Amino acid sequence: MKIVIAPDSFKGSLNAGAVAHCIEQGFRQVYPQAEYVTLPLADGGEGTVDVLLSALNGFKNEIETTDALGHSCQAYWGQFSQHKKGVTRECALIELAQASGLARLSAAQRAPLLTSSFGTGLLIKAALDAGVEKIVLGLGGSATNDAGAGILQALGGKLFNVEGDEISAGGAQLMTLSHMDLTQLHPRCKEVEFIVACDVSNPLCGPQGAAAIFGPQKGATAQQIHILDAALGHFADIAAQHSGMNHRHSTSYGAAGGAPLGLSLAFDMQLKVGIDMVLDTLNADQILKDAHLLITGEGQMDNQTLQGKAPFGIAKRAQQLAVPCIAIAGSLGEDVDLLYSVMHSVFGSVRSPQELEQVLSEAERNLVNTARNVAATLRLGQCLLKE
Amino acid sequence: MKIVIAPDSFKGSLNAGAVAHCIEQGFRQVYPQAEYVTLPLADGGEGTVDVLLSALNGFKNEIETTDALGHSCQAYWGQFSQHKKGVTRECALIELAQASGLARLSAAQRAPLLTSSFGTGLLIKAALDAGVEKIVLGLGGSATNDAGAGILQALGGKLFNVEGDEISAGGAQLMTLSHMDLTQLHPRCKEVEFIVACDVSNPLCGPQGAAAIFGPQKGATAQQIHILDAALGHFADIAAQHSGMNHRHSTSYGAAGGAPLGLSLAFDMQLKVGIDMVLDTLNADQILKDAHLLITGEGQMDNQTLQGKAPFGIAKRAQQLAVPCIAIAGSLGEDVDLLYSVMHSVFGSVRSPQELEQVLSEAERNLVNTARNVAATLRLGQCLLKE
Repeated sequence: MKIVIAPDSFKGSLNAGAVAHCIEQGFRQVYPQAEYVTLPLADGGEGTVDVLLSALNGFKNEIETTDALGHSCQAYWGQFSQHKKGVTRECALIELAQASGLARLSAAQRAPLLTSSFGTGLLIKAALDAGVEKIVLGLGGSATNDAGAGILQALGGKLFNVEGDEISAGGAQLMTLSHMDLTQLHPRCKEVEFIVACDVSNPLCGPQGAAAIFGPQKGATAQQIHILDAALGHFADIAAQHSGMNHRHSTSYGAAGGAPLGLSLAFDMQLKVGIDMVLDTLNADQILKDAHLLITGEGQMDNQTLQGKAPFGIAKRAQQLAVPCIAIAGSLGEDVDLLYSVMHSVFGSVRSPQELEQVLSEAERNLVNTARNVAATLRLGQCLLKE
Repeated sequence: MKIVIAPDSFKGSLNAGAVAHCIEQGFRQVYPQAEYVTLPLADGGEGTVDVLLSALNGFKNEIETTDALGHSCQAYWGQFSQHKKGVTRECALIELAQASGLARLSAAQRAPLLTSSFGTGLLIKAALDAGVEKIVLGLGGSATNDAGAGILQALGGKLFNVEGDEISAGGAQLMTLSHMDLTQLHPRCKEVEFIVACDVSNPLCGPQGAAAIFGPQKGATAQQIHILDAALGHFADIAAQHSGMNHRHSTSYGAAGGAPLGLSLAFDMQLKVGIDMVLDTLNADQILKDAHLLITGEGQMDNQTLQGKAPFGIAKRAQQLAVPCIAIAGSLGEDVDLLYSVMHSVFGSVRSPQELEQVLSEAERNLVNTARNVAATLRLGQCLLKE
């Protein structure tokens, strides 16, 4: 029997690798002879690169780049080798939040009129220079609202105002854009496979757009939202002259301050949902296809789990491959029964009425025990007569 | 598939019947076609008569009797019909704590030198008068230390001092006992089947005896313990002249202030562990023998569960009959893995880190959900290939 154990982390207590290890330990008490494959997951959000690099035996390349306000900083891009059909390709994993994230700025520094994705562009450039054939960029956590203009500039794109001068950094400056010269872009931009992972479906502009919905958390006032939204629209119009397509209302182009717009001018870009990017990068379908059972889980499972979270994503893949799935969570929230459409059963592992702190400190032991009991129940089912 | 659901209560939230109902509800979501038998349990302690009467369609007979201090009070004995091999017998269920319990006395009223089991004797007499052919008496919770002398007196036994006067009530007075006349005992005493359920193995006398171990909780001082222990021993010596056997050191004769001693003089008494009495009274073996699965549980399962608690008791019966058992508890305490010798798996049903109060208020919902998930895991096991 082949059992794939692919959980997300239990936030606050166990990373995804530790969760997978505990579940395996519990199952081994009951099924010592089974074949186990552990596949720690992340949902495409912060920390995803670390989980993927660890799973794929990759490594980090640290370089000097700039944060969203142009200050010099250190950041890394991840590198791993992908083996498929006898061919090995070098691939890069980058999170936009690494260089251009909100986490690098204090609350007082948040300034979406000024912030630029230039630093992320430098990371991408470094990966291209290193010769990777595939780049996976995770959006989310950005401090920027420049529609990826900074990335484009870092890769050699020239954005001019009406006087023929290059425009300055920041979302507000896009309003002054008159025309672009993309002929000097990094020569490898059009060669590389470029995957963008994002979990929002918002369009670039309008009341559901990047500035209106995500501007406030980046520090934008109502008036600044108005300016930024107009600037994004203006950039989309100019960009349409190059690409032949106006992306003002394109799905997901509102992610990361409109970054997909700039990226689409440089790359033959594919947009993917975060967890799908993770599962594809990990080659999950290949690992699952001959499995007899999938065990997944996360710290808290509830109705949010259905919103693109890792356990739901892999459970759907498993379902398509007719592999049954059981989830073991830290705790269970509301509407867990919604998960039964893709999971046979969903267990929590809190053992008694306790404070959160104590529950977190016991998470490992309780998880091993719960996994052992789930396995024992499965085995008992195997011994019971069919109804 | 026949599924027997036989849990104890979840103390503080759900009685045993409600627990069984919740588990059945959860299982029915997965196995709607299965045959369900619910068998709410108790472990022989307080409340056992109520659980048994409800399971056996019995009823209560309330009479006027006396509490341990001789004050008039109302108490009941339970009655039910037992059908076995085509024969129907009327049976009585009595708890010593009903009339002679500590719960009837205030802390200030506790007086083990004076308390008497006479009131329990009146309940037994009432059952004998009603013509029952079997009496089950549950010990535990007693306020008395009179070695069942009061019971004996209520049934017609005469206990004389050296002057030939009947001795007064209470453990201390046993010291004045000189001889007994048991010829006037209720004529049905020797006809009736008499089962005594108790969960302690303490002897009548000595450092592990009734007075030394249970005296303090009944209000005895160190000096009183000394008096009571000597009185019990004296009674045992006199009793030995009638029965031919001295019970000073007999196992379990230290239960309920030595009540088995007096009872043994009136009845052909059988001592049983509480849960075994419950299971035998409920005819559990008969119900289990063609079952495919037993589900049991209790409010908290831990290393105490092994000490004669209901789930452990029925799990052992099930094991002897080769019926697999799963437990669903409210919460799980320490050393749950000790239970795996008789239970395939043991689940808690707390869903998240919470205060006890909230856990209790959600117990019903969480129990249904846990049962549903256990059932779904079993069913998945039935569908999985054997290893």
